[in-house]
Amino acid sequence: MIKIGLIGYGYWGPNLARNFDANPDLELAIICDFSQDRLERAGMLYPQAKLSKDPEDIFKNNALDAVAVATPVSTHFDLAKKALLSGKHLWIEKPMTENVEQGEEITELAQKKNKVLFVDHTFIYTGAVAKMKELIDKGGLGDMIYYDSTRANLGLFQQDVDVIWDLAPHDISIMDYLMPAKKLAVSATGSHFYGDAIVPKALLTIYMENKLIAHINVSWLSPVKVRNTFICGTSKMIFYNDNDPSEKVKVYDKGVDLYETKEERYHLKVQYRVGDMYAPKLKDHEALKFGAQHFVDCIKNGEEPVTNGAAGIEVVKILAASKESLKKNGAPIEIG
Amino acid sequence: MIKIGLIGYGYWGPNLARNFDANPDLELAIICDFSQDRLERAGMLYPQAKLSKDPEDIFKNNALDAVAVATPVSTHFDLAKKALLSGKHLWIEKPMTENVEQGEEITELAQKKNKVLFVDHTFIYTGAVAKMKELIDKGGLGDMIYYDSTRANLGLFQQDVDVIWDLAPHDISIMDYLMPAKKLAVSATGSHFYGDAIVPKALLTIYMENKLIAHINVSWLSPVKVRNTFICGTSKMIFYNDNDPSEKVKVYDKGVDLYETKEERYHLKVQYRVGDMYAPKLKDHEALKFGAQHFVDCIKNGEEPVTNGAAGIEVVKILAASKESLKKNGAPIEIG
Amino acid sequence: MIKIGLIGYGYWGPNLARNFDANPDLELAIICDFSQDRLERAGMLYPQAKLSKDPEDIFKNNALDAVAVATPVSTHFDLAKKALLSGKHLWIEKPMTENVEQGEEITELAQKKNKVLFVDHTFIYTGAVAKMKELIDKGGLGDMIYYDSTRANLGLFQQDVDVIWDLAPHDISIMDYLMPAKKLAVSATGSHFYGDAIVPKALLTIYMENKLIAHINVSWLSPVKVRNTFICGTSKMIFYNDNDPSEKVKVYDKGVDLYETKEERYHLKVQYRVGDMYAPKLKDHEALKFGAQHFVDCIKNGEEPVTNGAAGIEVVKILAASKESLKKNGAPIEIG
Amino acid sequence: MIKIGLIGYGYWGPNLARNFDANPDLELAIICDFSQDRLERAGMLYPQAKLSKDPEDIFKNNALDAVAVATPVSTHFDLAKKALLSGKHLWIEKPMTENVEQGEEITELAQKKNKVLFVDHTFIYTGAVAKMKELIDKGGLGDMIYYDSTRANLGLFQQDVDVIWDLAPHDISIMDYLMPAKKLAVSATGSHFYGDAIVPKALLTIYMENKLIAHINVSWLSPVKVRNTFICGTSKMIFYNDNDPSEKVKVYDKGVDLYETKEERYHLKVQYRVGDMYAPKLKDHEALKFGAQHFVDCIKNGEEPVTNGAAGIEVVKILAASKESLKKNGAPIEIG
Repeated sequence: MIKIGLIGYGYWGPNLARNFDANPDLELAIICDFSQDRLERAGMLYPQAKLSKDPEDIFKNNALDAVAVATPVSTHFDLAKKALLSGKHLWIEKPMTENVEQGEEITELAQKKNKVLFVDHTFIYTGAVAKMKELIDKGGLGDMIYYDSTRANLGLFQQDVDVIWDLAPHDISIMDYLMPAKKLAVSATGSHFYGDAIVPKALLTIYMENKLIAHINVSWLSPVKVRNTFICGTSKMIFYNDNDPSEKVKVYDKGVDLYETKEERYHLKVQYRVGDMYAPKLKDHEALKFGAQHFVDCIKNGEEPVTNGAAGIEVVKILAASKESLKKNGAPIEIG
Repeated sequence: MIKIGLIGYGYWGPNLARNFDANPDLELAIICDFSQDRLERAGMLYPQAKLSKDPEDIFKNNALDAVAVATPVSTHFDLAKKALLSGKHLWIEKPMTENVEQGEEITELAQKKNKVLFVDHTFIYTGAVAKMKELIDKGGLGDMIYYDSTRANLGLFQQDVDVIWDLAPHDISIMDYLMPAKKLAVSATGSHFYGDAIVPKALLTIYMENKLIAHINVSWLSPVKVRNTFICGTSKMIFYNDNDPSEKVKVYDKGVDLYETKEERYHLKVQYRVGDMYAPKLKDHEALKFGAQHFVDCIKNGEEPVTNGAAGIEVVKILAASKESLKKNGAPIEIG
Repeated sequence: MIKIGLIGYGYWGPNLARNFDANPDLELAIICDFSQDRLERAGMLYPQAKLSKDPEDIFKNNALDAVAVATPVSTHFDLAKKALLSGKHLWIEKPMTENVEQGEEITELAQKKNKVLFVDHTFIYTGAVAKMKELIDKGGLGDMIYYDSTRANLGLFQQDVDVIWDLAPHDISIMDYLMPAKKLAVSATGSHFYGDAIVPKALLTIYMENKLIAHINVSWLSPVKVRNTFICGTSKMIFYNDNDPSEKVKVYDKGVDLYETKEERYHLKVQYRVGDMYAPKLKDHEALKFGAQHFVDCIKNGEEPVTNGAAGIEVVKILAASKESLKKNGAPIEIG
Repeated sequence: MIKIGLIGYGYWGPNLARNFDANPDLELAIICDFSQDRLERAGMLYPQAKLSKDPEDIFKNNALDAVAVATPVSTHFDLAKKALLSGKHLWIEKPMTENVEQGEEITELAQKKNKVLFVDHTFIYTGAVAKMKELIDKGGLGDMIYYDSTRANLGLFQQDVDVIWDLAPHDISIMDYLMPAKKLAVSATGSHFYGDAIVPKALLTIYMENKLIAHINVSWLSPVKVRNTFICGTSKMIFYNDNDPSEKVKVYDKGVDLYETKEERYHLKVQYRVGDMYAPKLKDHEALKFGAQHFVDCIKNGEEPVTNGAAGIEVVKILAASKESLKKNGAPIEIG
């Protein structure tokens, strides 16, 4: 039995608690939050867990094997460091840290301490992403051309991060998992609201090796919820609509073959290849459940999670470059 | 009766011919194209029209009142100039010219010659855009926040222009019509294909006065056809889906009111205003039919078209800045 | 505090338990089921409730004020009768009873005992149905013409009832609530499966006064989930799609005005009136929560629920006539 | 070259004229209609065709090889008979005749005269129906269980036929083509409008051999256009949405396997088989074009069309039985 303590019971913490509690190998031993009100709600659902307002109660507790950090990103580095230094495995929410240096320090510390570092890029553990990874790795899409995603809805505005830091980690982590090419530079542009205080809508372009490109559109100000991703290869194209309850991933046998003849101004439609579409059956599970199990397995077997420190750093690198590019109205920022 | 000559019977010319022919005030007198094959097809449908391979047959024909230019953009400037110099009203396809200087010269020439200059930004004459213009001008959306559009499908690749010059004029012209704020700068990024020869997918960000912003996503490489536009104001938001056969324009009584309290990290959902949605009945006509009638009315009454030279130049300005920004991987280019 | 006992913790019982437990005026005092396994699951979530395999523990418990019956319909009559005879208010699942006589006996008994009888036609308590009721009662649809609904998905097959008794009570209760005209006769047809043992798909036509008609299509064998209802009046038409997460109810300002001229074979399209569509904001709550509150209010104030015995009997009448018509391959059966 | 005369240039005739004119083996020699106005419109598009108000000009013209009848159904029998008696091949619109006897007489006459009789069940020649036929004939759906279609929109009301005779021939012909089992009986119910004069909405149930069943829902009074068909077999299920511009036919690898155990009231979801969905690429052509070519091929090769007299009679049989059942409020009428 792996005993775990949870720090942060705000927006996401309750989902972690529920999944940790349901995992037969995990024991949710302590829940920590600064709000008395939240602790009480936690206590009703998990009467067996201790409740505390002080994270130190977790770090100094030698009976605990692991810590999950689900607090605002500005607190991640300190809490993560203390967790690892106190000899515990670490589950940390996305984005991993506020900057790349912090991410690297945490990752090195986990290695030195020989502890599992799991960054909660939840979508990696969905049935949809798993199926797309399988298709792409088998070469089913041909050469990759681009990744394009839109993640938009009405709310939630946050005051300590902009929409890029809030929503884009989902798309960046999926994209990096499916297209693990070297990232070269980022251009980011965004709209402003309420003076300059808030960026509720932004566009990222991520340049990669081999002319690969990713476009990511994130918004807190959309009248309808959009969760669309297009992944295009020379052989096949994917349309992944996370809002679709039954056919999230559609694989199109469509493509384009260009001929070099130049007789006519317009290439005719016959040069496009249009075949069947199919929507593979996806594993239907809660992603966090699989994530929690993977965390458990990595601890038991001493393995590295799929969403390890390196994956977390990659996301933070792109976020940090985006922040800089955003200030420069889209000027490209190289990724170190 | 206004006698009109049409130059170019390729992709778009047949649509012009059909609408000119159907207008009771227009007589389609000459059709000109370099391809014998196309001329034959035109001749079968419009037996009363003369056919010619030489545009000079149009310019030197004094019985003609107007010329429509529907050829590749690289030929627009020369043909337009000759048409105006020969004393004819001018209908010109989008984008108006290859660069801003050419657009300005044509516009000035039309004014000097006292001729109507109609730039065919077709979408301005749709029922959907007319309804949105009406809503916005009445102040129904409150203060404007952003414009965001995606125009994507599989094909047509062109070799003389990239996807921005092919598809974005539609969106830029709609956006400029609905949000006539001063345009300040453009950031453009794009994917490459087939070496660097072709840009089949691109993102534009257009910065305007008053922190207004437009995001425009255009693609020739999408497995599904997308024609989505979001227009967001502080009071209401519009979702305009040109693919929807029956409810193209949806107006959402949704918005966000931010309070300056900072007690909690997350603003609660109650700050969002969510009300009814309605889809106004739109005039159901072919846009070109209205465009052709507007052209006729302007000639008869000596008036300026809604899509005049200035509107055409505005689009070319943004296209030209995009081209430059695209080469610089998104670095913002000011609009002169 | 109203103390309530729940009989049946199978498919629907857990939803009742959750909503009763969350209501501040209800105390979920006993949960009864014949399955040890289910009782254990109930016990984990509601540690304060007593658990029992014998419904008599509920009936003979004088501290209880109310009983909820969520068992197979074949057991409803006996359990309901005992509940009322033991002096308790009654919440009973749909369909209320196996036949009309049983329904009438229960309803009379509740009146005699002066107890609240609440039939759980859950959909009546949704925001969607409440909004449609409001629109119709204000006369917004003009004269009613028809009701047409389809409720289809893959599963659940039941062995003790056919698809009509399983799914149609939802639609019949909504239809009867929105169109409370006298029901005259029913024609029902259905497909068979697995020999004659199971009717997984059926069509009902319900004839009403004033030439009103309802068509109800129910299926356990559909590749996609369908929850479509059309309600048509002479002035406006409603499309209610319960699958739509954000715009469940759409009101179309569409209609038809027939002229009696006979010059032409085809009436022209101009006789159709086509105006705006709007999707009113709906109250967003769990229907059972409102149902539970309404049950509480009726008990406190000695009032009759909207879904009272008469409403329950009306549904059973139509189900019983359908069963008979189904055997006669659609021959109409009068409703007594 | 096959010379053809067309009788009737109202709603559907212009589509026939266009497709006959475009076929290289057909010469549209005469167009006949009682309306001067329609003839003038026809004359502008087909200047080579003779125009006439008298069908006799077609029958007595010995240079003609074939006749197409696109007039109201009440005139079909007389015109068809004269066409065949004058020695011409016959293209006749759906429904073929007003009653079964007329259909049989026409069919026998065509055989006696050794002429091709083509009934225009247009949908049989669509890419969608062709693909479904191929799938079903290869056994891909397993044993067939049911056919269920809805064809609804706003308009067109006709005064000489009800909605069943207007719209249901499409669905009946598709169903009969895909499920050629013996039809046994029909139950039909419908709503009334404008007194009893018009039936704008109806439901048919067609009983077939082997417990196969078809449900057909047709309506002239729907706020939205619906063209949905579900075809369900024991192995796979089809959802055919003719409104979907890109994925009309979806094949679901879904099914249900029932076990005979009775331990539990509810069969669990695991008994359902849920696999991939795929949308095959369909041939993208105008159905009438293929129909016209098939007519030509049958004339040239002396073959029987797929939509021959027998297919036409089958549809009329079901329509006639529906008419009778409708009067009896759904009582089943056997098909002779």
